[in-house]
Amino acid sequence: MFESAELGHAIEKSVYDQEVPALREALLNAQFDLETARRFPVIILIAGLDGAGKSATTNTLNEWMDPRYIQTHGMSEPSDEELERPHMWRFWRQLPPKGRIGIFDGSWYQWPIFERAGGRIKNPKFDQALEEVRRFEQMLIDEGALILKFWMHLSKAAQKKRLRKLESDPLTRWRVTDRDWKHFEKYDTFQEISERALRRTSTASAPWIQVEAVDPRYQKLTVGKTLLEHLRARLDQPAAPPAPVVAVPAELPALDGRTILKALDLTQKLDKADYERELEQVQGRLNLLTRHKAFRDHNVVAVFEGVDAAGKGGAIRRITQAIDARLCAINPVAAPTEEERAQPYLWRFWRNLPRRGRLAIFDRSWYGRVLVERVEGFCTEPDWLRAYGEINDFEEQIVDSGGIVVKFWLSISQEEQLRRFQERQDSPFKRFKITEDDWRNRAKWDAYETAICAMLDRTSTEIAPWTLVESEDKYFGRIKILRTLCQSIEERL
Amino acid sequence: MFESAELGHAIEKSVYDQEVPALREALLNAQFDLETARRFPVIILIAGLDGAGKSATTNTLNEWMDPRYIQTHGMSEPSDEELERPHMWRFWRQLPPKGRIGIFDGSWYQWPIFERAGGRIKNPKFDQALEEVRRFEQMLIDEGALILKFWMHLSKAAQKKRLRKLESDPLTRWRVTDRDWKHFEKYDTFQEISERALRRTSTASAPWIQVEAVDPRYQKLTVGKTLLEHLRARLDQPAAPPAPVVAVPAELPALDGRTILKALDLTQKLDKADYERELEQVQGRLNLLTRHKAFRDHNVVAVFEGVDAAGKGGAIRRITQAIDARLCAINPVAAPTEEERAQPYLWRFWRNLPRRGRLAIFDRSWYGRVLVERVEGFCTEPDWLRAYGEINDFEEQIVDSGGIVVKFWLSISQEEQLRRFQERQDSPFKRFKITEDDWRNRAKWDAYETAICAMLDRTSTEIAPWTLVESEDKYFGRIKILRTLCQSIEERL
Repeated sequence: MFESAELGHAIEKSVYDQEVPALREALLNAQFDLETARRFPVIILIAGLDGAGKSATTNTLNEWMDPRYIQTHGMSEPSDEELERPHMWRFWRQLPPKGRIGIFDGSWYQWPIFERAGGRIKNPKFDQALEEVRRFEQMLIDEGALILKFWMHLSKAAQKKRLRKLESDPLTRWRVTDRDWKHFEKYDTFQEISERALRRTSTASAPWIQVEAVDPRYQKLTVGKTLLEHLRARLDQPAAPPAPVVAVPAELPALDGRTILKALDLTQKLDKADYERELEQVQGRLNLLTRHKAFRDHNVVAVFEGVDAAGKGGAIRRITQAIDARLCAINPVAAPTEEERAQPYLWRFWRNLPRRGRLAIFDRSWYGRVLVERVEGFCTEPDWLRAYGEINDFEEQIVDSGGIVVKFWLSISQEEQLRRFQERQDSPFKRFKITEDDWRNRAKWDAYETAICAMLDRTSTEIAPWTLVESEDKYFGRIKILRTLCQSIEERL
Repeated sequence: MFESAELGHAIEKSVYDQEVPALREALLNAQFDLETARRFPVIILIAGLDGAGKSATTNTLNEWMDPRYIQTHGMSEPSDEELERPHMWRFWRQLPPKGRIGIFDGSWYQWPIFERAGGRIKNPKFDQALEEVRRFEQMLIDEGALILKFWMHLSKAAQKKRLRKLESDPLTRWRVTDRDWKHFEKYDTFQEISERALRRTSTASAPWIQVEAVDPRYQKLTVGKTLLEHLRARLDQPAAPPAPVVAVPAELPALDGRTILKALDLTQKLDKADYERELEQVQGRLNLLTRHKAFRDHNVVAVFEGVDAAGKGGAIRRITQAIDARLCAINPVAAPTEEERAQPYLWRFWRNLPRRGRLAIFDRSWYGRVLVERVEGFCTEPDWLRAYGEINDFEEQIVDSGGIVVKFWLSISQEEQLRRFQERQDSPFKRFKITEDDWRNRAKWDAYETAICAMLDRTSTEIAPWTLVESEDKYFGRIKILRTLCQSIEERL
């Protein structure tokens, strides 16, 4: 796999000096066009062996282009903040927005490869981690990103020579650590593991590009020219035509009219006295849970979805009343900001994942992708079809890192919604809560019902199940939510 | 995930009787169009719980449509033949050709789910197996297949009732075995495992379709109508337009003109006397290896690629001379037959995989996809770009099942090729070996060299490396091939 990168590629200084000015100019032009069009982000991974000129290459790219529009990330040990989130969180937060270039020196491949090389995981777990990476990259590509993955390669003899040379020069000696030599001793193992990683993640849309790292001029010129070629090719492509509508029916034919939503018993009730007694009791239970010692190893992500006026806000308030406000953040989700629109749609939720010992409540959530965006046509059919899998991956990563994901769908009847809309319009205190949008959504009740049932079927998983909440009676709904939340936490503590 | 399939869906007999005739007619029409157009195959998986009407559904589909054009496969225990190949071999050999429908009652999901349920594998290995399945399905889809995956579901209570009912009727009692009850005891485990499987393999292009199996009328009508909808949607789509050319450069810019092929030392020679002595010795060594007891647990897949007149045939003869002809099959690869063109491109190689204790020699191979098909434009750019990964997956499956994959690239210079072409034309015994095609390929030497180098870089893996053979001197090349072959076998015995 590394054959072409062990041939002793080299470029003479005179050739290099002649080629670089034109390359720099072309790169700057491409970068300007990228920044102007803001159509897609560019993600560059610089990976490979120690001493294989990774940082030198990164520096050169910054030197050749306008560094104001390049974000360079040297990924070393994760911070405390990062250790308390799913391990992809640190990469999500550093993703470049559309129009920008992000260079990752060290990347999402580092962790699986080191774990495997250290013998802490075996091939099945290694493959699992690589598959997670592959899915992540596929999502970025589907969201429009251009990804270039450079693997800097040195033969065993060349690496030894390189480390020796760095060590012998007092100016560069500091760059060679004991760790580097320890890694060198494992060259063959490391090589075998890297080959497996490259083989499994070299896809048609994001192939690995192996670059021989012996001659710095060859290495820099290769990276620069490859970047230019890919960038130019993508910029010169006409803006993607609207994706063709997938003619595949996404749902079962509605044969007998039965749906999960219609099967709910919305007549369930709780009278006020019972409600108040139970509320006090379950709020106390929740408060104790958040102060439990074991709670510090977990975080809670609570999702609230439901038709307009289903009572999400009221239910959320009954939760926050019970918890130390410092431990709990509410994320009301409206239309994305400009910054958020320049990122993959999940980005704004990733950034708001809570640390351990905390709760994050999402008043509407990433499920907007398969609800409002689907129904209103804000995204294409292929986009929302792939979203189910992407969302399941997202939630699995939260759960794997100790998170507790609780998802509530608040259900009311069409008649009850109308009653509440009218009540809101008639009340001076509540009039602000009802807008044109609400009436428009209401008119699409059936289309929403189809989308909701598909969402429940495809994303209610064993690790992050949905809880359907009969909310026709607010008291009943609130108590059910609080109890489910307590129970979900108790199961994990 | 199974919420919608536990609602007690049911269809009244009168409705069913009224709907079925029209559905059957529409299905037969669609099947006729499918058979006439021969544009794509249809693959239907019937999976799910015991007693959930899998075989009844399969029978109904055969009854409703023209069974001559349906291939039904009840996948139970693998045969001896099948156990000696990679475990996907049994599915590859049963794939329906374009224009036909293949129904798999029990499928490639059965093995991973049973292994996981039996506790013989844990989640990482389970995910690895599911990922293999996902890649397999993606390849089928990229090759044009329509895949429908039905999961027949029963709630725990419904399954118990179903098994009891079958048992109480003397006519159906035989269908309920101890194994079924044993599985039932593990209902919850099985459910959790199935959910994981469905979640990880429900993709945008091949989602799982969960069908409630309580009411047979509902079940059959749902499967029939869903099949019709998908089939009709696909048939009515205009033939796919030629895929857009991916503007991404697939190779590194050629900066210094160095390539793996140019780096070979083609002056290496062996004189006739040395050759004959060494040949006898290494052929003897090979013969002993194929009679070694441990050899019975392995098979050998030897691939020969090279430019025209590089000496593949001569080298292959030196191998077959050394081996019991019953153990060794030579597969000369020319243009695919009509039957082969109706299948994914790897199909004709899968069918020729050897049993244990055997050798299969491929004189040209699946690498045609990334060589001649790429250079001559016989397939699109996205097709050959994805082929590298598909080929690596294929070879990994062979190696995982005990196979030894040995791949030789025979290299000669352009001048030597010309000399051999002329010699062939001048010799009455060899004239048949040179055709117009050979001269045409020769004219595209540089394009082939680019394709060859990319192939070597992307498919020379730690599990199935390429051996480059300097074949300017035939004696030298043949001995190198025989030695490498012996060594590769010795390493595994």
